[in-house]
Amino acid sequence: PAGFVQLVGAGPGAADLLTLRALRALGEADVIVHDRLVPDAVLEMARRDARRIFVGKRRSEHCVPQEGINTLLVELAREGKRVVRLKGGDPFVFGRGGEEAAALREAGIAHEVVPGVTAALGCAAQAGIPLTHRDAARMLTLVTGHTREGVLDLDFRALARPGQTLCVYMGMSTLGALHQGMIWEGYDDATPGMLIERGGTPDQRELRGTLAELVEHGEDWAGDGPVLLILGEAVGMAPLPLVPQSAAKAVVGTPDPV
Amino acid sequence: PAGFVQLVGAGPGAADLLTLRALRALGEADVIVHDRLVPDAVLEMARRDARRIFVGKRRSEHCVPQEGINTLLVELAREGKRVVRLKGGDPFVFGRGGEEAAALREAGIAHEVVPGVTAALGCAAQAGIPLTHRDAARMLTLVTGHTREGVLDLDFRALARPGQTLCVYMGMSTLGALHQGMIWEGYDDATPGMLIERGGTPDQRELRGTLAELVEHGEDWAGDGPVLLILGEAVGMAPLPLVPQSAAKAVVGTPDPV
Repeated sequence: PAGFVQLVGAGPGAADLLTLRALRALGEADVIVHDRLVPDAVLEMARRDARRIFVGKRRSEHCVPQEGINTLLVELAREGKRVVRLKGGDPFVFGRGGEEAAALREAGIAHEVVPGVTAALGCAAQAGIPLTHRDAARMLTLVTGHTREGVLDLDFRALARPGQTLCVYMGMSTLGALHQGMIWEGYDDATPGMLIERGGTPDQRELRGTLAELVEHGEDWAGDGPVLLILGEAVGMAPLPLVPQSAAKAVVGTPDPV
Repeated sequence: PAGFVQLVGAGPGAADLLTLRALRALGEADVIVHDRLVPDAVLEMARRDARRIFVGKRRSEHCVPQEGINTLLVELAREGKRVVRLKGGDPFVFGRGGEEAAALREAGIAHEVVPGVTAALGCAAQAGIPLTHRDAARMLTLVTGHTREGVLDLDFRALARPGQTLCVYMGMSTLGALHQGMIWEGYDDATPGMLIERGGTPDQRELRGTLAELVEHGEDWAGDGPVLLILGEAVGMAPLPLVPQSAAKAVVGTPDPV
């Protein structure tokens, strides 16, 4: 039979934030090609006898280069396999799904993309941050904190403009560089923000404070999970954690009462 | 029993793009409060005997004002009901979920937010548009084309900056104003774009062209479904429709071969 590849968004990490379409794809696939951001709880929803291939990327060590993943997907499809390429969040939001789709198209392999709940939405829902708000945030901007040849290559002039909620994926290791770029463009580093680790999963941890406070305390607070930064007036609309603060919800500095 | 409200994202419109968590919420709710963007296929996944309350908003006529929806949710919860407030896409992305969550919090009603696949992601997956791409789009920006007191009140200076993919929700009726605002800030209206109607559903229709071409031909093309506009170099990476073009996938002008 002809092979078929589905690029599937696994959502932010909780197994029940998979879509029904993604669940069905997992149940039908012969092979699951996945990376580090996909938790075991999601992988367990695949067919028991499906082959699992880990092609995870860590921050600095690329286990399998992107070229290799593209080739793997094409080869598996040519063997007639039904393949799910499972990616954390959504395949077309910082997932390099576009490169995989292009490779499949060039090779003439039938494929489709199954969208997923991207991390920013999963984090915000759980933390109670309205990403858009008629009064405070009429624009929602997503960027990645990954560097490009060692440089955090972002358009800080655009990101520093008011009236937006900014979500920085994988933003922990470059938080200092982001802060510098933003204040250079006139951004107020007293803007409320939140660092969210393992967002959208049962293990979500939150650190809330101004951008300046998060830069000061974030490194000590962070564990080894992926971290998303949300910045903007909308963060100030999230409910404050109860006192005493839990390990999961912490505030640095003194938040303004809303 | 104490009432409980879930603000649930229904996803872009296809029933199988619901999350498992949203499906469970629908199966457990006594009352479903929904608006126009939630299709029947999704509503049918609720308990048969659940009460359905339509509080839809149309572009210019607000059937039930937001204040009234907030009060309704609080009252139903105080009657001890388990309530699902079902919203197209994600509750915190142009869904006014923040206002509903604030009203519930002020009233002391237990509630949670269930994220969903927002329209931009559903549309892009189906149209094959990689919303981010290492080379062409390092930033993804979401705005709404709704007017505020009759004016399209957007930060065109930020939106016109290069290197981003721009998604405009409900952007059809204000497409002309968007075009004017963007070119005033120096945006190239030969930038590739796509209008997507009923995106993320089996009835998705697409019109592809430059921004200038979409402004010229969009009005004639559009039906009566909600329309999302995606703009940016990433749109040029989507596969071109086959020739002859179908009613679902059309191109105006002459797209550059990729």
